[in-house]
Amino acid sequence: MVARTVAELARAIDQGRGVAAAELVLKGGRVFDLVTGDLFVTDVAICGDRIVGTGGDYRGIREIDARGKTIVPGFIDTHLHIESSLLTPHAFDRCVLGHGVTTVICDPHEISNVLGIDGVRYFLESAQETVMDVRVQLSSCVPATHLETSGARLEASDLTPYMDHAKVIGLAEFMNFPGVLAKDPLCLAKLEAFSERHIDGHAPLLRGLDLNGYLAAGIRTDHEITTADEALEKLRKGMHVLIREGSVSKDLHALISIITERHSPFIALCTDDRNPLDIAEEGHLDYMIRTAVAAGVAPLAVYRAASISGARAFGLSDRGLVAPGWRADLAILDDLDDCRVSSVISAGRLVDDTLFATRKAVKVVGRHSVKARPVAAMDFAARGSGPSTPVIGVVPGKIITEYRTFALPYRDGTRRVDTGQDVIKVAVVERHGVNGNIGIGFVNGFGLKRGAIASTVGHDSHNICVVGADDSDMAVAVNRLGEIEGGFVVAVNGKVMAEIALPVAGLMSLMGHEDVRDALIPLRQAARALGTTLAEPFLQVAFLPLPVIPHLKITDKGLVDVDRFQLIDA
Amino acid sequence: MVARTVAELARAIDQGRGVAAAELVLKGGRVFDLVTGDLFVTDVAICGDRIVGTGGDYRGIREIDARGKTIVPGFIDTHLHIESSLLTPHAFDRCVLGHGVTTVICDPHEISNVLGIDGVRYFLESAQETVMDVRVQLSSCVPATHLETSGARLEASDLTPYMDHAKVIGLAEFMNFPGVLAKDPLCLAKLEAFSERHIDGHAPLLRGLDLNGYLAAGIRTDHEITTADEALEKLRKGMHVLIREGSVSKDLHALISIITERHSPFIALCTDDRNPLDIAEEGHLDYMIRTAVAAGVAPLAVYRAASISGARAFGLSDRGLVAPGWRADLAILDDLDDCRVSSVISAGRLVDDTLFATRKAVKVVGRHSVKARPVAAMDFAARGSGPSTPVIGVVPGKIITEYRTFALPYRDGTRRVDTGQDVIKVAVVERHGVNGNIGIGFVNGFGLKRGAIASTVGHDSHNICVVGADDSDMAVAVNRLGEIEGGFVVAVNGKVMAEIALPVAGLMSLMGHEDVRDALIPLRQAARALGTTLAEPFLQVAFLPLPVIPHLKITDKGLVDVDRFQLIDA
Repeated sequence: MVARTVAELARAIDQGRGVAAAELVLKGGRVFDLVTGDLFVTDVAICGDRIVGTGGDYRGIREIDARGKTIVPGFIDTHLHIESSLLTPHAFDRCVLGHGVTTVICDPHEISNVLGIDGVRYFLESAQETVMDVRVQLSSCVPATHLETSGARLEASDLTPYMDHAKVIGLAEFMNFPGVLAKDPLCLAKLEAFSERHIDGHAPLLRGLDLNGYLAAGIRTDHEITTADEALEKLRKGMHVLIREGSVSKDLHALISIITERHSPFIALCTDDRNPLDIAEEGHLDYMIRTAVAAGVAPLAVYRAASISGARAFGLSDRGLVAPGWRADLAILDDLDDCRVSSVISAGRLVDDTLFATRKAVKVVGRHSVKARPVAAMDFAARGSGPSTPVIGVVPGKIITEYRTFALPYRDGTRRVDTGQDVIKVAVVERHGVNGNIGIGFVNGFGLKRGAIASTVGHDSHNICVVGADDSDMAVAVNRLGEIEGGFVVAVNGKVMAEIALPVAGLMSLMGHEDVRDALIPLRQAARALGTTLAEPFLQVAFLPLPVIPHLKITDKGLVDVDRFQLIDA
Repeated sequence: MVARTVAELARAIDQGRGVAAAELVLKGGRVFDLVTGDLFVTDVAICGDRIVGTGGDYRGIREIDARGKTIVPGFIDTHLHIESSLLTPHAFDRCVLGHGVTTVICDPHEISNVLGIDGVRYFLESAQETVMDVRVQLSSCVPATHLETSGARLEASDLTPYMDHAKVIGLAEFMNFPGVLAKDPLCLAKLEAFSERHIDGHAPLLRGLDLNGYLAAGIRTDHEITTADEALEKLRKGMHVLIREGSVSKDLHALISIITERHSPFIALCTDDRNPLDIAEEGHLDYMIRTAVAAGVAPLAVYRAASISGARAFGLSDRGLVAPGWRADLAILDDLDDCRVSSVISAGRLVDDTLFATRKAVKVVGRHSVKARPVAAMDFAARGSGPSTPVIGVVPGKIITEYRTFALPYRDGTRRVDTGQDVIKVAVVERHGVNGNIGIGFVNGFGLKRGAIASTVGHDSHNICVVGADDSDMAVAVNRLGEIEGGFVVAVNGKVMAEIALPVAGLMSLMGHEDVRDALIPLRQAARALGTTLAEPFLQVAFLPLPVIPHLKITDKGLVDVDRFQLIDA
């Protein structure tokens, strides 16, 4: 809760009682009350950042006609990485607030893997300027594993100086659940340091007594739940379930049956990773709400999950209801079931371009973060011979991969791509200026017949990941990333066909969301022109290096057998 | 949440995973899961003060057979004055914990009116030793009004040094709602100081826009709601409704219809003022739960209100569910519907006499707090004459009184009692050593034919309140209170018939709850022998001086017309 002065309190009391005109009044809308489930017509009076009156008639210094509209509490995204929108926090703010999302709880995990605590600091500074309330969880697992080269490490002692920052809630998704169960000292040091704060979880498929051990360490929330059965066990074990619908991982349909009024105090919503194309085409949390209602979920249950329940799960006790004394974060809807957001109030302010223009700019960090030396085709030579080669099997729309084996052509001591079998090359080029590693392997399932696709977004260390049917085009694409300070590049026949620059740590654009969206469309078309059959080729590239997700992955150190959690000698 | 060390975390993880024996295991009970509403048989493993395992089989260093029992989260009394039990916090702990009440949120309002901040400090020190978790709200309204002489004042600057104490939640029931609405500077100073903390409310009958003004000041909870209609308005306005069943004010039956599963996340239970006789004869929160279930309330709704919902309302995020990682505060029941508590676990420890014996004693404060000079019969002379006398009309079982008028006999310039009309004398004797005031009036409805009843419990300033048919017996009773350092006395024919000493600030006994209960029975009999027809004569005496409750009250300054909120010249 935010401190208030005597003068602010006096104004709020007078405006709430109606003895002074309120600063802002929404006239004649229907409030959806998430306590009783009632819909009732009322004015909503606002003073400063608070609601001060409902259930009555108010006059306002400024009045907004809300007749025919439905007013609900602003939505809370309880877990996401803003970097995955490819937007800076300021651009994300403009992109997502209009969808009714007035609070986001973000984990600056991606930028932290590139820049370390400087990345966290950039998010904290940005969070103090955004219109929406951006809350920050301190990234708990940087780097994610020892099997890759990241740009930075974060230990408990790096994080604790920021624990008491006004925008910090606690510790972000504790992905290293094997480390927790094994009582890894560095993990326990972080859990100890944050034992009085919220510690967010990340425990896909963790069940039974191992789940109990993980929870016993003080972890309280999880967004990695993919089946209703898993969700019910986690609910019964006191976890707050954060249902996720990202651009990559989509769990809403699998979990829709658990969104009941009974469970609603213990369920929240999140997007984790959602790209600006999906935000533009489908929406954000508003999309989740309308999808849930269309699937038969009671509006009371899903609107609670989207606001008050998420707030309570993370100790944000000032928001989540449309009632006097509560934070004036409101979504004004054309329609409750369809969750079409007409306008938004953020901390008592009508959200419009004028309001966004009042934000102070924050100096971006992580310029020139792509420190890989220029590469040539020969750098992608895959040494080896023999009849059998391990190949990463891509599964469309999933970040999980399969461990496949192919007989690939080889000559002169090197293995070659075979587009006939849909096997192309994949390489991860260390780009933090640490060691210049290049890990090389093969991937099946992209459908690429020629050219190359490269990205500086490569979870979680964000080295350059490149896939290609041609070593020269791979080199062209990788080198172009160095020139544009990171981003996505599609190259063929020695030339760049399409690109987007992501010069903020190689992860985020300097452009607004409309321009980023517009740049992604030709990129996607260029990738298709090379023959790929994947709907989201850049996302699939970005997750090839993530060695905490089964089964076969690749880092700058080489292929990783995730099931054995070790590098394999390809 | 309590900080945990690496060593504690490591033990919790191992015991949760079942790779080490748990410190304590409840074997084979049924857990009532307040998230899903399921009842399921499981072991419950405990390490230190936390639950570390459910949903599985565990072996324990110590095991308790819970077969046939039902395990629920320990109950949370969200608002009470421990002083009203007549017990010190240590004795209260032994009295109430066995009823499954593992957390109480108390307001040391009574002792603060006598001793000021020393009383608050005594409660904070005691709270660090009790087995149950006693949380303290800092008393917001000491004294309650300017119409009485209290022993102390508490301003914002007195309270703020204790804001960050580990046992402090925030600001206690803000009774002075007219002061809030009038923007009284001393009220606003307190609201400002606690604007980032929980501020508890107290707003009987406050509705409409005035309620909005009160809520706009940041007040979030209320236990003074007496009708379902009022409760629904307050729920819709975002208040957490604390349903009260005390010894004096009993609201459970009037509010039982609002205890639904839908509302349950926003409802909690409290006792406010409950004496040891009622605790012994009926129970405590267990009584409220069984009464609600017997009246048809869904067990899920009322058990949620008794634990998780109360915890969430006051930001106690570590308790309220039986699940790994949550505080091991448990009530083990013979029967769910009847809420018969078989045994209790408090912060992981089985509650028994051995456990209570480990508590360090806390030096009591407020000895010799009764500083009234000795009085004589003539001090109770009621000067006045004429046909009409204002008389306090007692309503059995209510703290509200009526403003009645009687024609009383008078001679020699003084008015006299008239037991034929059931009108006796009432006097309030200032006892804090401030000014020696004696306020004198008449009261109707006690049924007393002779003798006198006196008490140093006299809300909220806790001066001596005495009622009597005979001025000499009034003097005997009042003087006896001086000798025994406060308490309750019944006197007749110049002799004390029954008494209990309350030497801790004139409010609390030095005895255990069994002895206090045993002492109250002859006191009640003695009062009946004098002719009183009231079921709770001492409680009715204690509330005669409370000038914030309509309609006619008496303080050391004289009769108070509460509706006009001023002293009347009797």
